[in-house]
Amino acid sequence: MSLIANTPKPPYYAVIFTNHRTEGDHGYGKMAKRMVGLASEQTGFLGVESAREEVGITVSYWSDLESIKAWKANIEHLEAQKSGHEKWYSSFKVRISKVERDYGI
Amino acid sequence: MSLIANTPKPPYYAVIFTNHRTEGDHGYGKMAKRMVGLASEQTGFLGVESAREEVGITVSYWSDLESIKAWKANIEHLEAQKSGHEKWYSSFKVRISKVERDYGI
Repeated sequence: MSLIANTPKPPYYAVIFTNHRTEGDHGYGKMAKRMVGLASEQTGFLGVESAREEVGITVSYWSDLESIKAWKANIEHLEAQKSGHEKWYSSFKVRISKVERDYGI
Repeated sequence: MSLIANTPKPPYYAVIFTNHRTEGDHGYGKMAKRMVGLASEQTGFLGVESAREEVGITVSYWSDLESIKAWKANIEHLEAQKSGHEKWYSSFKVRISKVERDYGI
């Protein structure tokens, strides 16, 4: 979760999830770990990067939009999204984007 | 820098910059602040989100690819990119992506 994702040559997709947490854990830590594990088992999953200071940013990478849709509709993930709305996040934004180019060292 | 960016209705662009730092500051903190200030003055800049734990993630948002190109070629930013290569980052990845859809609370 803490490494730079080893993604293939573009194009591929990035889901940028930015959020502010509420106070307290309320089962968040355990569920967050479970969701990363579960996401990584899904068809089309390419990698994930995550960091939190005042704001939390998790970027997950996917081969195509269909895989992103399927992951959003995953039954266990739906339960986590519900708890996210109700308990864990005071605000969040999800951005679905198509990676057109990348470079690095 | 610590808030969820208040971006307009898609489409717009996201530059996802993920990195690992080297040990020590070497002028990084001051330059990082300066670059956020300078970026926010550029044409087409829409916002920025940033967090660091083991990995640092900075996502900047832009109205179009031309603005991203112009910012990459900014003379003071070029100097910072050079120091980034030479001193501040042991590894990094830059991903240019087009935000097609977003939602949140």
